[in-house]
Amino acid sequence: MTIAMYGPDLTFLGVRRCDLDNLPDADAVILGAPFDGGTSHRPGTRFGPMAMRQACYLPQDGSRPSLALRVDGLRDLRVFDAGDVEMFGGDVERSLSSLERAVHTVAASGAIPVVLGGDHSIALPDVTGVSRAHESVSVVHFDAHADTGEIEFGSLYGHGQPMRRLIESGAVRGDRFLQIGLRGYWPGPSILDWMAQHGMRSYEMSEIVARGLDECLSEAFAIATDGCDAVFLSVDVDVVDPGMAPGTGTPEPGGLTARQLLDAVRRCCLELPVAGLDVVEVSPPYDHAEITAYLGNRVVLEALSAIARRRRGDPWDPRQPLLAGR
Amino acid sequence: MTIAMYGPDLTFLGVRRCDLDNLPDADAVILGAPFDGGTSHRPGTRFGPMAMRQACYLPQDGSRPSLALRVDGLRDLRVFDAGDVEMFGGDVERSLSSLERAVHTVAASGAIPVVLGGDHSIALPDVTGVSRAHESVSVVHFDAHADTGEIEFGSLYGHGQPMRRLIESGAVRGDRFLQIGLRGYWPGPSILDWMAQHGMRSYEMSEIVARGLDECLSEAFAIATDGCDAVFLSVDVDVVDPGMAPGTGTPEPGGLTARQLLDAVRRCCLELPVAGLDVVEVSPPYDHAEITAYLGNRVVLEALSAIARRRRGDPWDPRQPLLAGR
Amino acid sequence: MTIAMYGPDLTFLGVRRCDLDNLPDADAVILGAPFDGGTSHRPGTRFGPMAMRQACYLPQDGSRPSLALRVDGLRDLRVFDAGDVEMFGGDVERSLSSLERAVHTVAASGAIPVVLGGDHSIALPDVTGVSRAHESVSVVHFDAHADTGEIEFGSLYGHGQPMRRLIESGAVRGDRFLQIGLRGYWPGPSILDWMAQHGMRSYEMSEIVARGLDECLSEAFAIATDGCDAVFLSVDVDVVDPGMAPGTGTPEPGGLTARQLLDAVRRCCLELPVAGLDVVEVSPPYDHAEITAYLGNRVVLEALSAIARRRRGDPWDPRQPLLAGR
Amino acid sequence: MTIAMYGPDLTFLGVRRCDLDNLPDADAVILGAPFDGGTSHRPGTRFGPMAMRQACYLPQDGSRPSLALRVDGLRDLRVFDAGDVEMFGGDVERSLSSLERAVHTVAASGAIPVVLGGDHSIALPDVTGVSRAHESVSVVHFDAHADTGEIEFGSLYGHGQPMRRLIESGAVRGDRFLQIGLRGYWPGPSILDWMAQHGMRSYEMSEIVARGLDECLSEAFAIATDGCDAVFLSVDVDVVDPGMAPGTGTPEPGGLTARQLLDAVRRCCLELPVAGLDVVEVSPPYDHAEITAYLGNRVVLEALSAIARRRRGDPWDPRQPLLAGR
Amino acid sequence: MTIAMYGPDLTFLGVRRCDLDNLPDADAVILGAPFDGGTSHRPGTRFGPMAMRQACYLPQDGSRPSLALRVDGLRDLRVFDAGDVEMFGGDVERSLSSLERAVHTVAASGAIPVVLGGDHSIALPDVTGVSRAHESVSVVHFDAHADTGEIEFGSLYGHGQPMRRLIESGAVRGDRFLQIGLRGYWPGPSILDWMAQHGMRSYEMSEIVARGLDECLSEAFAIATDGCDAVFLSVDVDVVDPGMAPGTGTPEPGGLTARQLLDAVRRCCLELPVAGLDVVEVSPPYDHAEITAYLGNRVVLEALSAIARRRRGDPWDPRQPLLAGR
Amino acid sequence: MTIAMYGPDLTFLGVRRCDLDNLPDADAVILGAPFDGGTSHRPGTRFGPMAMRQACYLPQDGSRPSLALRVDGLRDLRVFDAGDVEMFGGDVERSLSSLERAVHTVAASGAIPVVLGGDHSIALPDVTGVSRAHESVSVVHFDAHADTGEIEFGSLYGHGQPMRRLIESGAVRGDRFLQIGLRGYWPGPSILDWMAQHGMRSYEMSEIVARGLDECLSEAFAIATDGCDAVFLSVDVDVVDPGMAPGTGTPEPGGLTARQLLDAVRRCCLELPVAGLDVVEVSPPYDHAEITAYLGNRVVLEALSAIARRRRGDPWDPRQPLLAGR
Repeated sequence: MTIAMYGPDLTFLGVRRCDLDNLPDADAVILGAPFDGGTSHRPGTRFGPMAMRQACYLPQDGSRPSLALRVDGLRDLRVFDAGDVEMFGGDVERSLSSLERAVHTVAASGAIPVVLGGDHSIALPDVTGVSRAHESVSVVHFDAHADTGEIEFGSLYGHGQPMRRLIESGAVRGDRFLQIGLRGYWPGPSILDWMAQHGMRSYEMSEIVARGLDECLSEAFAIATDGCDAVFLSVDVDVVDPGMAPGTGTPEPGGLTARQLLDAVRRCCLELPVAGLDVVEVSPPYDHAEITAYLGNRVVLEALSAIARRRRGDPWDPRQPLLAGR
Repeated sequence: MTIAMYGPDLTFLGVRRCDLDNLPDADAVILGAPFDGGTSHRPGTRFGPMAMRQACYLPQDGSRPSLALRVDGLRDLRVFDAGDVEMFGGDVERSLSSLERAVHTVAASGAIPVVLGGDHSIALPDVTGVSRAHESVSVVHFDAHADTGEIEFGSLYGHGQPMRRLIESGAVRGDRFLQIGLRGYWPGPSILDWMAQHGMRSYEMSEIVARGLDECLSEAFAIATDGCDAVFLSVDVDVVDPGMAPGTGTPEPGGLTARQLLDAVRRCCLELPVAGLDVVEVSPPYDHAEITAYLGNRVVLEALSAIARRRRGDPWDPRQPLLAGR
Repeated sequence: MTIAMYGPDLTFLGVRRCDLDNLPDADAVILGAPFDGGTSHRPGTRFGPMAMRQACYLPQDGSRPSLALRVDGLRDLRVFDAGDVEMFGGDVERSLSSLERAVHTVAASGAIPVVLGGDHSIALPDVTGVSRAHESVSVVHFDAHADTGEIEFGSLYGHGQPMRRLIESGAVRGDRFLQIGLRGYWPGPSILDWMAQHGMRSYEMSEIVARGLDECLSEAFAIATDGCDAVFLSVDVDVVDPGMAPGTGTPEPGGLTARQLLDAVRRCCLELPVAGLDVVEVSPPYDHAEITAYLGNRVVLEALSAIARRRRGDPWDPRQPLLAGR
Repeated sequence: MTIAMYGPDLTFLGVRRCDLDNLPDADAVILGAPFDGGTSHRPGTRFGPMAMRQACYLPQDGSRPSLALRVDGLRDLRVFDAGDVEMFGGDVERSLSSLERAVHTVAASGAIPVVLGGDHSIALPDVTGVSRAHESVSVVHFDAHADTGEIEFGSLYGHGQPMRRLIESGAVRGDRFLQIGLRGYWPGPSILDWMAQHGMRSYEMSEIVARGLDECLSEAFAIATDGCDAVFLSVDVDVVDPGMAPGTGTPEPGGLTARQLLDAVRRCCLELPVAGLDVVEVSPPYDHAEITAYLGNRVVLEALSAIARRRRGDPWDPRQPLLAGR
Repeated sequence: MTIAMYGPDLTFLGVRRCDLDNLPDADAVILGAPFDGGTSHRPGTRFGPMAMRQACYLPQDGSRPSLALRVDGLRDLRVFDAGDVEMFGGDVERSLSSLERAVHTVAASGAIPVVLGGDHSIALPDVTGVSRAHESVSVVHFDAHADTGEIEFGSLYGHGQPMRRLIESGAVRGDRFLQIGLRGYWPGPSILDWMAQHGMRSYEMSEIVARGLDECLSEAFAIATDGCDAVFLSVDVDVVDPGMAPGTGTPEPGGLTARQLLDAVRRCCLELPVAGLDVVEVSPPYDHAEITAYLGNRVVLEALSAIARRRRGDPWDPRQPLLAGR
Repeated sequence: MTIAMYGPDLTFLGVRRCDLDNLPDADAVILGAPFDGGTSHRPGTRFGPMAMRQACYLPQDGSRPSLALRVDGLRDLRVFDAGDVEMFGGDVERSLSSLERAVHTVAASGAIPVVLGGDHSIALPDVTGVSRAHESVSVVHFDAHADTGEIEFGSLYGHGQPMRRLIESGAVRGDRFLQIGLRGYWPGPSILDWMAQHGMRSYEMSEIVARGLDECLSEAFAIATDGCDAVFLSVDVDVVDPGMAPGTGTPEPGGLTARQLLDAVRRCCLELPVAGLDVVEVSPPYDHAEITAYLGNRVVLEALSAIARRRRGDPWDPRQPLLAGR
């Protein structure tokens, strides 16, 4: 059911391969979504899964003990990689639908799907696939862009529209949709009105700078868990400033630092019942020295580490010295 | 009917804009096909039209007097640019069909469509659109690849299959399909058998090196004009060695030099009744210092210059000194 | 009077073209200053205007509604683009003088000139042209470098000297010259003495880090508006750290983040009577994935948006949620 | 015994993995030599094996039917990939000695070792390992450089010296050492004298241009097979012009075209009893768009295809049309 | 005793050359360590010394007056450049031992050795060489990685192990080893246990973010000077976020900003008795627009400036305006 | 009188420095012309001298024994490097005039000036300076462009005009001006008429391909030496195809190969009384992996080697095996 679309058949940092048609007991299953057919500008995210799977200078040995969190996200959790979903760029509808089946298969098995994009079109099947396996799912969405567009290039499906489709379809309640890091000059008033009408809560960078990211996150977390039993975490790498994440399709200056994103993802996965995750918009052709692919890889590791730490149950103090308690 | 899909609304080196819905008397009309939805590997050709239109260090003034051919291809012919056809990457069938309408509109008006790709998927609508406006069209096809694949990623349409679709549909007779520059490791025996059965004539690089490109071209030209009143010229920039044309999606070492390609395109347009033309697979994200975009631009100029010279009617001698006769 | 020096004739994100010799009623007029003839090190800023005009993934449609400021800087203001001033790199004096005429023409018409550089040599004509149309102009200058050099390579004119020339000529009072972001190892003591003697106020990064950028800006704004009716805002992109703005000629590590610059430019234009603006030292040959060009483009948009907001008159609160009040 | 030193554990284009300690019946065994510890200038060839193994736009399926030669070098031969030999860059002697053991193991098993470099230091163990398994081995060596240096940086081992060590050790007779493509400004007279004394035959580019590459090759082949039962083919990618192979450590302008190299490698393997092969000096950090990695990959495929064709036994005519006889 | 290993024979920004065998009275002596033979992943640091010596847009005149510190680190101190130590990449032990001799020679003469790396393997000889000339040396170590590995690729020496070797050999007490900026997924528990047992104090980024860098530094400084008369400062450029320092071998997202590093290095050299310094892991092949080389250059200048200021003795206030007191 | 304008003060591959005001007995003197103030498109050639001086993987030791020609161009001739002429980009007239003085000083001393450009504007002072020291100078000019423009950007001086200025001033007779490699779409008819009227002989690529480069060169050499006692050789690197020389300002596809240029330069210097030489239009910001800088460096070496061989007087046979006669 899955294949290696563009190049050799790798697993994420060497974790075990699994077969979607016969899933093992797993805590998390990685899926590649090598798709850039929904991109409105620079393509290249089809190579995102391959790049994020291997962007590391350490051995690809399926183990990554986190210095900060004192867990091994790839070993303390049962993490498998199910390979890439076949997603032909020229047929967005068929591709998204294949992905949704795969994500739902994982979620229905009780594992957390971790989807490596691909452009942000994939959030539609990612969140839908997860929401079908849970009572009520909220979304925490890091991005420079709201991705709530109506129709683009004559299509309902594309990387500027998935969040609208999700709310329209009822997969997610608009007032449980939290957006962090928006900025720039899109969308315009009518789409913003639509967003307001559906009760979305979007944190633009001005608010984040003025109030502090941590305060905004705490507020958003309270909303996300109000009446929802599961949270989907969608991370568009362009939430980070283009200087620190150049390998992406629609760069918008003035974003978070990489440090801020990693800390925020950590908090999400330590504090929220994350049931699904995607990391999108890493575009290797525009990257330099793999720095954006590394960042995408580290976002996945940070999330898995924090999920493992959350499951272990003991509190975590960022002020504790690294070597304390050894 | 046409738009500027990715960036500012430019015309090819500053030639006049025209409107597809109301075509002027034209000798040649440039169309952008900013599409990479059919690519099997590296994307990026969506930016090919924008790159090829402006890759020049001279003023964008709609004039290019050829030193070699002593004509101005942009002024001695009536050349217009109709802009880009909207081609959403995520919907290959709709996109190709929009392009076919545009190409046919141009061809039916009596002008030569000059299509700037885009990936090679577009050859299907390009040649079909032209063939519908002529009695019998043959194809001269420069490429490292035969592009005669059956189904890829579950789709009949993609950049590895257009030539098969053209022959299957009857748009072109297989035995009037001439391929120059093939090499490498694709396709395999069954597709080659299909090609042989349909009478295609494909010149692999070994034959070209052994016999000389000029001899192969002369032979091919004789076939192309045997019973056909029009020739479509399809130039995939990857026919050139990747060292001289790195900005492309499926590079295959061992190709022609840029000089050879320019001379071959010149001969085609001097000696054949060229009724349509596309230049494809220029992928700016993989280019360096715009050298592949420049090459694509010069292929277009070489073709237009030679068409202008052919129409002027007097013979051309490459051995004549540049300043002779002034 | 203006031309497209290097490539196609674009306007800034598709705003309307205007003619310098026959200016329309405008709030702001964009001018390209494609000049790197005054550069002491890496050239390339001649391509800055072309790059900044089109660095965007959104349609080039002359509209940019700011999420943060809730205005459309390109539509709520009457913004036109007058094209490029012809500035031959090999003749700095003639070039600067042509630019001064153009800037003065705009300023005298009552519009704000927005000059896209080019190297920082152009600040001399930019500020001079504006100052001739106002009673008394102060300068707020973001830069890693003081640009107050005496003579370089035997010339009074170059990108390291404009601020000195401006004070010497009397175009600006030294004690109304505010510099933000200086750092590094230039200039030496004698030039610093000259700066002190003329009452300049320069905020080096150590002071900015120790006191906070916002406190420094507030102090500077008070000086800038003390007895001056107009402020010229000159933004050298190298004020930002080279990691976030690599495409520049004289990179100096340890600068502002892109976020800080955008917020600072916003404050300037919200709080000060900005009468002219230039964005300089964007050098595309040294850029990667256009991130520096994007930053330059966003500095212009941020400024125009804030000017529009200032003119609307109602107060702005950065803590207001994006969708509040809709 | 072998590992994946730098990144995921891939096989060459997906051929089967094998274990050096328990070799299967094989015709050719690929070995990675990820070593740049012997480089005198630019490093990076440690990433050569990983890059050459996967540089292809086709599926990594262990099959590559050659259009030109009408064989599938990866399937008509039994080709396996034994992975990378561990070669710590900081210890050249230990590294080379590990490689020699591995190469000899393969050669002694009756298979052809195909070694992916790595810098040219590895030719010493490569040829030595092969020579120990054969009666008498000659070497055909494509390179811009003679690699016959004495001592460099205080070491006998490095990428400028392997050919001298091979002749000194008696692994190869100097008068059965054929060098093709030398040029430039190294070595100086004393080393050339040493080469002459040992009867080496080196074809500098001037001779190749004047006489033609094919004539030179025919002459070299006659020497190589005079009293030798086996030939080692060593291909330094810098024999090709840097324009077509920029990703290398010591580029020397004025080389062969990629086409010439591929045709020459084909002739070697069609006409000579090749018993071992290495492809060296592909340095990914200096490559662009993978073009040099692609070239290295194609050199390996060309060699394997031609070996398969030679074993099939029927004559090959480059002038035969691609589709003839189907 | 020293040479120019890779390219022309430059001195650091034009300071005077000196001869290691006959050292002048110097305050600081620069040594190049062009070595990447100990690198576990991307090489290229062999070109670090050449790149850091000349990365500047100002004249290479041996003078750099610091705006912030009001001293000229290259003139107020007697700074010389002794050139590169010959360090053959293929022989790590011999190379490190040559470097140790050179560093000790400088330290024993009473000057501060300033070593330009090179990969971090060189910290072993750098600190050892300095420790042999002082009573008791502590180490302040900026890095993303602890570099306390046991054996890698079969070798005790490499860029992941120097800190362990230093503590094992007794050159430095483990409880006077301060590490700033660690993060990511290496090393694992057993090495961390070893570090704890030896009393190392390592500040991971979570602690730095939570407590603030300045508080952590103050605490570390107190430890470093407790019973030690000298401090060695080792700066691995990968402590900075890869977005701001891409030109390095083992990038780990989430690091310091360049501004933070410069300020921290300044504080070290203002407040501590720095007796030796190295700046390592600048890898030009992976750099873009020289930004990482510039950063390395500025770290050296910041250190020398602060040492000069410390020696001058008067207090320094970062809040003082640049032009105050002139 | 000369300086190091952009970076460290290097000599060409380590040859001896000399002082223009006090020239030694020299056969050839290298001068840097770091000037791009006359460029009509991409700048960057100001860094050409620095790049060409050091582009080599061999030691910078002032010795380069040519394999092909069996001389050491840097030792058999007395070659010195006089450094860079100060050429402020913003003042083309002053800059060109400084260069002319320097070139004339060298030529008048009896040495051959070897000028490293810089854009092609410098040919005007280069040839003028040489012509003033000789009876009658002809020019052999390798270039894609005729460089015979009238006025550009309002200036008589720029890189598109030097050849016209030289003929107008009488420095060179039009009918002793030989151009090799022209192609593309510039200049137009009126300039071509002017060229014809002045008797220039320009070999466009079509003629070169049809007749062969060697035949064209032989014909050109006969003209060049007809009544002239000295030849100036001007090599614009853009005569080579952009694929092999991307680092240049005005790339024109379809050029010579690097091999052809090196062989042609060799013939010029073996067969003609070359009295001056420039190598221009190498633009490092657009280069990749220094391949264009290497090519420029090798053009200089090829020329100096051939001049040395010509002076030695014995005939040279390209067919002689490398090791023959040792």
